[in-house]
Amino acid sequence: MFKSVFFDIDDTLLNTSVFAKTARRVALNMMIDAGLPLTSDDAYHQLREIIKEKGSNYDKHFNILTKNVFGEEKPLLIAVGMVNYHNVKFALLQPFPDTVSTLIHVKSKGYKLGVISNGLTIKQWEKLVRLGIHPFFDQVLTSEEIGYEKPHPKIFEESLSRMGCKPEKSVMIGNKFEADALGAVNAGMSAILFNCDLTSEEKKMISDEKLDIEVISQLKDLEDIL
Amino acid sequence: MFKSVFFDIDDTLLNTSVFAKTARRVALNMMIDAGLPLTSDDAYHQLREIIKEKGSNYDKHFNILTKNVFGEEKPLLIAVGMVNYHNVKFALLQPFPDTVSTLIHVKSKGYKLGVISNGLTIKQWEKLVRLGIHPFFDQVLTSEEIGYEKPHPKIFEESLSRMGCKPEKSVMIGNKFEADALGAVNAGMSAILFNCDLTSEEKKMISDEKLDIEVISQLKDLEDIL
Repeated sequence: MFKSVFFDIDDTLLNTSVFAKTARRVALNMMIDAGLPLTSDDAYHQLREIIKEKGSNYDKHFNILTKNVFGEEKPLLIAVGMVNYHNVKFALLQPFPDTVSTLIHVKSKGYKLGVISNGLTIKQWEKLVRLGIHPFFDQVLTSEEIGYEKPHPKIFEESLSRMGCKPEKSVMIGNKFEADALGAVNAGMSAILFNCDLTSEEKKMISDEKLDIEVISQLKDLEDIL
Repeated sequence: MFKSVFFDIDDTLLNTSVFAKTARRVALNMMIDAGLPLTSDDAYHQLREIIKEKGSNYDKHFNILTKNVFGEEKPLLIAVGMVNYHNVKFALLQPFPDTVSTLIHVKSKGYKLGVISNGLTIKQWEKLVRLGIHPFFDQVLTSEEIGYEKPHPKIFEESLSRMGCKPEKSVMIGNKFEADALGAVNAGMSAILFNCDLTSEEKKMISDEKLDIEVISQLKDLEDIL
């Protein structure tokens, strides 16, 4: 029986990809209304390229977009983009419908709960605080804090050590095959994938190598496993 | 008759000091609830000292506060502080009750409107966008953009030049005697002070030196002057 359950944050406890995409679309449409001379799709495509190049934690994507389009930064357009991005983001930042009830269930079964997340420490904590779910977790570790990203074993090993728990008694819940599932398994833990479309190669790998990875379609399926 | 009217932003178009103070108080009380071992007044006093030292545009005041108290940064407390500070700030970020009607009146009289503000460019634009008043202004200039802060004459001269307007045909509206009023007058403009408690020395200086500075008690008093 497991003693500790570790969760990824983004796209595991909340629908990060959907809210980020919607917030970016709204922000760009408002920038277009305010004078950005692009179509909505063209603006979105250009923004995605900038995010791909600079990473999602860089905070000046809109600055670069206006500079690319106009040859100089346009403060009004940047401000319009940022205000609308944040307004929509905060409005949509909610847990999945069954996140809280699942956390309550798992906690009530006596498990210790942790978070292992790739991202910036305060930004990831802010998500937990905004969702109101931070009191569920006994340990929260981010890649920024430890200096290693999932799937590197060190981030899993440090989490287990802080929790005082052995890997074979622990399970990692996440949405990314390599970062969450393979990373956890390589650190000696079990893994459960949620909100993840496995490729046929990944499915074959799990089956051929008999990897300790389960796949669930809803977070509350955890209640039957744990 | 004036042709151009320039406005300061903070504590002139909106009640910045009040919302910032309230937001900080709420944030600190939530941090105390989450484990910060200080009284509300003690926390507020310590935060003010940090803001005084680092400036209000530094974005890691709460990091320093937790480090001062615990000897290390506490991500949960920092996140609790930031989330609550921003929630309250955005809820309270509103123009004064007569800001919009006054801007409409001044605009309808045919004046060109500008902003001259000490602060970070995108942050100041964000306030105008959040208040929904950015379309009133023909020119917005920040100290970050020009590299000089009010009361330095260069920030006034650059604003006048961009507006294509002579100083003697222009008036500056602000809440700070030295930065807004003296700065504008030294650049050859008129000045109107609002939301400002003048010291007796400042009153005497205006009277003795016959400075072109008027004082109004409500923003809408501008309608009688302009």
